[in-house]
Amino acid sequence: MQLIRSARDMQAWSLAARRAGLRIGLVPTMGYLHEGHLSLVQQVRARADRCVLSIFVNPIQFLPGEDLAKYPRDLPRDERLCEGAGVDVVFHPEANALYPPDFSTTVEETALSVGLCGASRPGHFRGVTTIVAKLFNCVLPDVAVFGQKDAQQASVIRRMARDLDFPVEIIVAPIVREADGLAMSSRNRFLTGSLRQDALCLRRALDEVERAYAAGVRGADALQEAMEAVIRRVPSAAIDYIAIVDEHTLAPVAVVSGPVLVALAVKVGATRLIDNTVLGS
Amino acid sequence: MQLIRSARDMQAWSLAARRAGLRIGLVPTMGYLHEGHLSLVQQVRARADRCVLSIFVNPIQFLPGEDLAKYPRDLPRDERLCEGAGVDVVFHPEANALYPPDFSTTVEETALSVGLCGASRPGHFRGVTTIVAKLFNCVLPDVAVFGQKDAQQASVIRRMARDLDFPVEIIVAPIVREADGLAMSSRNRFLTGSLRQDALCLRRALDEVERAYAAGVRGADALQEAMEAVIRRVPSAAIDYIAIVDEHTLAPVAVVSGPVLVALAVKVGATRLIDNTVLGS
Repeated sequence: MQLIRSARDMQAWSLAARRAGLRIGLVPTMGYLHEGHLSLVQQVRARADRCVLSIFVNPIQFLPGEDLAKYPRDLPRDERLCEGAGVDVVFHPEANALYPPDFSTTVEETALSVGLCGASRPGHFRGVTTIVAKLFNCVLPDVAVFGQKDAQQASVIRRMARDLDFPVEIIVAPIVREADGLAMSSRNRFLTGSLRQDALCLRRALDEVERAYAAGVRGADALQEAMEAVIRRVPSAAIDYIAIVDEHTLAPVAVVSGPVLVALAVKVGATRLIDNTVLGS
Repeated sequence: MQLIRSARDMQAWSLAARRAGLRIGLVPTMGYLHEGHLSLVQQVRARADRCVLSIFVNPIQFLPGEDLAKYPRDLPRDERLCEGAGVDVVFHPEANALYPPDFSTTVEETALSVGLCGASRPGHFRGVTTIVAKLFNCVLPDVAVFGQKDAQQASVIRRMARDLDFPVEIIVAPIVREADGLAMSSRNRFLTGSLRQDALCLRRALDEVERAYAAGVRGADALQEAMEAVIRRVPSAAIDYIAIVDEHTLAPVAVVSGPVLVALAVKVGATRLIDNTVLGS
């Protein structure tokens, strides 16, 4: 396994691999890897000859006051996990190389990124689409895999790739959960003491909405209230949003008829967690 | 020579060429080709194994009220000129294929594109950077050539390519002029009757500023006034802007010390023309 630090070296590696007729797959991450990331590696390995995993805590997708500085980092541990999972290249660029002082270009998606996390984190998805466009141009992948845990991010990136004609197939892989149902996230490490248990309220709210839907409830208000009731029982938890939206347009629905994405963001203690499920698919 | 109409077919052609070890060069145009465009083809042919010339009148870089509908088009003539110049592929996509109804992603440069043409055509450069990013992803060139006539556009695209890590070398080729000094432009065809003669005021203003600079004038105000005086003598001509800016940052300068770009936009009759020169390089 190789560690590559510069965009130029990464491009040179990828161009050589492409000339050799090899298919390249990319798993973009912010590091501090967990089983969810490693499942993305397996998705790539099933679809490409070479797997590149990028590790970059992208400053421009964090808002002022968010957890950029304390976002967990552990490169040696990540490298061991990548080696074990069959990653061929870890691409780990420096922030000041990717963003020189006179950096002045952004990529922005303006339809799918306005609601949900986009509403509570204005500018976040502009940071995401900009770095993903950059990573696509550094790694030149044939296929890139994103996690369904960040469902809105996956939709926004799929749209961006289509709109800008990136020759990259976008795959979205299922959420990987801890044994007790908590969606895997690098931020789970902040859930100390009783907060770890409290964090299960996201999964319980999704269980509740799935139960209500199975029982025939179709009104979005009623479904949402059922979820809110679950979260409200946990004093350390504060709802950022609960959204019931069309799976493709991410526009809110009043009544569930086709497939809908049910997504929520909840602050548990100081840690913002997200989770989602799809109903009616 | 091949005519390719879809983004998918273009990518397939380019990926095959790359696998064959060939260097691809791109000349992006809006068609209605002239000697200026053909000089860009020669620049590409000197640097690449295959030359792709794109013809696309990009709707999103025209503002409401601008000349999108009447922009000159003549594909058979353009194809003949390309064939004669040694172009390998004319890429001529449909607007509704490149911009589906739910298109929602833009690429925006926010430093170099604010002044000059960006000030009088807000949103224009966002349209330019978006289509050029798309063309780069369709054609996958190793090198792309732009004309110095659109000096600000060339700077903005160079910055965009650097910021987004496009693996594309950007070349800027010298302005090609008619025998009497008028910079070649597809829009020159609108200069009927005496307007054709009047349009020479742009070149005369640049001659005047070069003379003044050679005579030792360094104050930007004095240089600008010398140019304005030339244009004001032509009743059909209305100055949009005259700018004396740092060649790299495009920031206005008060005194010419390093290399500066002197650029002007003038409406001659109903036709907006641009031209420029570099002083002190």
